[in-house]
Amino acid sequence: MDELLHWFDMIGIAVFAFSGVLAAGHKQMDLFGAVVLACVTSTGGGTIRDIILNIPVFWLQDTYYLWIAVATGVISFYLIRYLQVPMRLLMVADAIGLSVFVVIGTQKGLELGYSATIAIVMGMMTATFGGVIRDVLSGDIPLLLRREIYATAALTGAAVLVALDASGKLPGDLVIAIAVVVTLSIRLAALRWNLSAPIARFGNH
Amino acid sequence: MDELLHWFDMIGIAVFAFSGVLAAGHKQMDLFGAVVLACVTSTGGGTIRDIILNIPVFWLQDTYYLWIAVATGVISFYLIRYLQVPMRLLMVADAIGLSVFVVIGTQKGLELGYSATIAIVMGMMTATFGGVIRDVLSGDIPLLLRREIYATAALTGAAVLVALDASGKLPGDLVIAIAVVVTLSIRLAALRWNLSAPIARFGNH
Amino acid sequence: MDELLHWFDMIGIAVFAFSGVLAAGHKQMDLFGAVVLACVTSTGGGTIRDIILNIPVFWLQDTYYLWIAVATGVISFYLIRYLQVPMRLLMVADAIGLSVFVVIGTQKGLELGYSATIAIVMGMMTATFGGVIRDVLSGDIPLLLRREIYATAALTGAAVLVALDASGKLPGDLVIAIAVVVTLSIRLAALRWNLSAPIARFGNH
Repeated sequence: MDELLHWFDMIGIAVFAFSGVLAAGHKQMDLFGAVVLACVTSTGGGTIRDIILNIPVFWLQDTYYLWIAVATGVISFYLIRYLQVPMRLLMVADAIGLSVFVVIGTQKGLELGYSATIAIVMGMMTATFGGVIRDVLSGDIPLLLRREIYATAALTGAAVLVALDASGKLPGDLVIAIAVVVTLSIRLAALRWNLSAPIARFGNH
Repeated sequence: MDELLHWFDMIGIAVFAFSGVLAAGHKQMDLFGAVVLACVTSTGGGTIRDIILNIPVFWLQDTYYLWIAVATGVISFYLIRYLQVPMRLLMVADAIGLSVFVVIGTQKGLELGYSATIAIVMGMMTATFGGVIRDVLSGDIPLLLRREIYATAALTGAAVLVALDASGKLPGDLVIAIAVVVTLSIRLAALRWNLSAPIARFGNH
Repeated sequence: MDELLHWFDMIGIAVFAFSGVLAAGHKQMDLFGAVVLACVTSTGGGTIRDIILNIPVFWLQDTYYLWIAVATGVISFYLIRYLQVPMRLLMVADAIGLSVFVVIGTQKGLELGYSATIAIVMGMMTATFGGVIRDVLSGDIPLLLRREIYATAALTGAAVLVALDASGKLPGDLVIAIAVVVTLSIRLAALRWNLSAPIARFGNH
């Protein structure tokens, strides 16, 4: 189980780093600004999770996470100059990162012996706060808070993981894979068909 | 004294969660985005305080704080669709949260044996940083930094608490109640009569 | 070496506090909002560094850092009303703060025994995150992410410090002074001649 999670972790770092560079491209940032945004986007959620749980921040010892983010940042910075990158790709990269990070964060909460509530909150933080930082630094209202079933997808994936883990019937690797697929499916379906949850509005409008 | 503080704490969580949903309503966020904003607004200040003081984050063990935020978020999400909610209400809910949280944070600093300076800073952080996060995530310049005697009210309330606590003449519950009333009065008076502190501007403008 | 660093630290606090008040002036914030922004800008980077390294936040015991920020904030708040303050000054104050804080943060990472990678990251965080918070709270896209060789200057200064420290040939004070001068020179040159690193853009634009 640990190995699968580890691969997912590195994939999540890379796709969120890529999403950071795409956001940087929209704002015409320079190479180093883009790489900084790539690092902050890809490691931000897990950093906040570790700080709140008061455990060592994950990239302090395992610095290769930073190098993956930097390498992905530099490569995609030059890549987006020469390739046709559809705008939709930012959304898809973000969805993949969301799906693997929600599972990693929830799993970390469970391993540390926290309640289902806290495990789910940790999953949602890991998955969403990196993207929130990316959007805030780019001057946008976070994707997380917009209409398109973003928090909902993360919440469902985390809940599925907690429920399957509590039932104890399936092997750990399968539980993790199912939770990733559930999250990704909901988020991609929401993007594909423009699904949205009820929208907050005022009665007098 | 602890029990009064505890009640204030839950009231603060609820009114800040409500203020988060009101902000979400202005930006047409969906249900889950609104609930996330409710949670972050209501727990953000205390979370940053606990992290800086390096003590366990308050909602990790007492998860009912999160549930109060979630429940308030969901209920007010539907409430604001059917009731006439005057815009002013966001300001008043925010003022109540400011008043109870400044007292809770200052008290926590004093209990941990920190100096008056640090206790006051902790009170101001607890009271204001949740709202700052709400405003930043909503794409607004924080209320805290605008003109209307916001930081001033929190600072005065925290200073009153520290001074009365140091004098040791009044019972703890009364000290806390006085500090809450002082903070709330100053903030509501500022809102009512559009009071403002001196404004930063450049001499050559 | 410690004494030189200590002086640089206080200078960095003061210039970043000044840059916070200048930013507040552009947004017509009130006195207390401006002082809050001065404090957050000047202590934010070091606070995040200490939290991530899980060491006591530097201003909890040494509260005079806060008082330097508050005093600088109040004085410059009134100063900018009566003096002609060229807009360029914000950039220069920010550059000085960047240069001394990148050295302090990198040095702290090295002293704690972390790898060169982490020491450099800590230097960049200390130097840039206070300004990032200032810009986000003021509603601007962070200077850090814009074109003008900002992250590049910090990265170079941190790398010079790490390399000279590893070579062990020069006395510590000189190493620190060289790293500050290198960072400041690169940043001021970039401002003076509008230098910029390659800019992220899409191939199909």
